[in-house]
Amino acid sequence: MEQSKKVILTGDRPTGKLHLGHYVGSLQNRIKLQEEYKQFILIADVQALTDNFENPEKVRNNVIEVALDYLAVGLKPDLNTFIIQSMVPELSELTIYYLNLVTLARLQRNPTVKDEMQQKGFGTNLPAGFLIYPVSQAADITAFKADLVPVGGDQLPMIEQTNEIVRRFNYIYKTNALIECEALVSDIERLPGTDGQAKMSKSLDNSIYISDTADEIARKVKGMYTDPSHIRVEDPGKVEGNPVFTYLDAFDDDQEKVKELKEHYQRGGLGDVAVKQRLTDILVSTFEPVRQKRVEFEQDKDAVMKMLFDGTKKAREVAAKTLADVKKAMLLEYA
Amino acid sequence: MEQSKKVILTGDRPTGKLHLGHYVGSLQNRIKLQEEYKQFILIADVQALTDNFENPEKVRNNVIEVALDYLAVGLKPDLNTFIIQSMVPELSELTIYYLNLVTLARLQRNPTVKDEMQQKGFGTNLPAGFLIYPVSQAADITAFKADLVPVGGDQLPMIEQTNEIVRRFNYIYKTNALIECEALVSDIERLPGTDGQAKMSKSLDNSIYISDTADEIARKVKGMYTDPSHIRVEDPGKVEGNPVFTYLDAFDDDQEKVKELKEHYQRGGLGDVAVKQRLTDILVSTFEPVRQKRVEFEQDKDAVMKMLFDGTKKAREVAAKTLADVKKAMLLEYA
Repeated sequence: MEQSKKVILTGDRPTGKLHLGHYVGSLQNRIKLQEEYKQFILIADVQALTDNFENPEKVRNNVIEVALDYLAVGLKPDLNTFIIQSMVPELSELTIYYLNLVTLARLQRNPTVKDEMQQKGFGTNLPAGFLIYPVSQAADITAFKADLVPVGGDQLPMIEQTNEIVRRFNYIYKTNALIECEALVSDIERLPGTDGQAKMSKSLDNSIYISDTADEIARKVKGMYTDPSHIRVEDPGKVEGNPVFTYLDAFDDDQEKVKELKEHYQRGGLGDVAVKQRLTDILVSTFEPVRQKRVEFEQDKDAVMKMLFDGTKKAREVAAKTLADVKKAMLLEYA
Repeated sequence: MEQSKKVILTGDRPTGKLHLGHYVGSLQNRIKLQEEYKQFILIADVQALTDNFENPEKVRNNVIEVALDYLAVGLKPDLNTFIIQSMVPELSELTIYYLNLVTLARLQRNPTVKDEMQQKGFGTNLPAGFLIYPVSQAADITAFKADLVPVGGDQLPMIEQTNEIVRRFNYIYKTNALIECEALVSDIERLPGTDGQAKMSKSLDNSIYISDTADEIARKVKGMYTDPSHIRVEDPGKVEGNPVFTYLDAFDDDQEKVKELKEHYQRGGLGDVAVKQRLTDILVSTFEPVRQKRVEFEQDKDAVMKMLFDGTKKAREVAAKTLADVKKAMLLEYA
């Protein structure tokens, strides 16, 4: 039974608590997938360090926060395997071997890395660790023999890079040790920040966290960006690029009502305060139980860490098996 | 007592049997140093794969050959720690963490890598694994807490790169986990190939191996390049750039006699055949006992492998301790 389930690899860099953008973009999907698939969920502390190496406290402190978020939203330890990346040294070994199969030119051509390099403003000070992180991701994906990797459309180059490595490895070393993966592309639009920016980001202070209290949610929704030309209630307002409506699209179960509200807002006569109140109510009713569950788990952080260790141990066995196959194919099996 | 000995890290890429160039350039030195220092000798199979990844058989087969050469020349297992690099996964982990501390620009500026890139003709197809090998060397050196690293003058940039990583790591992570190393620069001139080329190299077929028989030595010396304008015995000949004399400089215990021969050769009247005969006699008397010892060790390859495993196990404990310190400093110590 267990064996016939397809394997998914997914995860997060532990650089902050998870927010509603994570919820809409991936957590909801994982909750849906957890019954049908064997899901490995990687808390990628090693990868987080590639661009946070000068801030190890941030990475360290957020490992448990991310785990609490997972449990709070309903990801179950008996259905998923949670992994602390740095506790699986096999991933480093695989990365080192895969690096021989990827050229510098190929790494520099990776569109996702290129974009992120620009965003992060590394300039000529690009850390080599950051440059090679797609290879480290290939190690993660292949180590756990993932069939499927949920990604946003902008991460497709990562899957391509992984499968290139898989094909090259299997060809050079005449083996089937590695398997190709498929992207599970999410069609969900990205949730904008409360300020209307394209995405929620800790540094922009435009995020609503899964762990926010009802008061924090109310305060953040109250301060949300809307249509700046919608000044008086009777003015017609825009719903495109208005994050309040994008959030309602994402969280309101009554989409008929949302349609109605949008029409009303567009023709004028519907105030921001009223729409925001509806959004607050919906978010609070959705996330207050999540927060309460999170508080419960927080009471016993040791148990949460133990769950991570148990998952990591299980995952490590899978990775060790893959590494053994890889080293055997490379004739590095001595004993 | 043991603790007070300074630590040396040295080693070879297992890409071929060792030759007289290795003997003069490093093995002799190691034999001299083995009593006074705690010497870690790394058989760098992982590093060898960075530019031999398509030829794993070569690397695999030469691990034992290199080990046999070590034992044959008199490197003692009770005085040295022999290590198979791929069996110390801690080195991969350290490499991954160090990669965050080195920029791509810095790697591309490394003069040794630049030269080798040109020599090997990688062009734009430079494997990322090859580009980063100085970081992997830094992992080797620091893992075993080496105080001293014997290098040729052209490898000084490697030591610099290592110490840069050490200082950066200790500074960022507020630790003394890593120690700087010093180069032990050898003043020995490089032994040219039998064809007069700057160095012995398997691909040029201009090497005399430590494991060569007396007949092979005689044949190779007979075919050695000398002064091409020294045609008749009575012609004056050049000793500069004449490998026969360079070899006599390196191997003849009677340097007074060598001086005399050189003068005779230069003024004319000394034939190549006579000088080569002397060189053959000296090489055979030096290396025939080595070869016989090697044949003895070859009789029990399992014992040689066991010696490598024992050394690797001991070395791994040291590397694991360093890695633990490194991960602790990076706040990656969870359990």
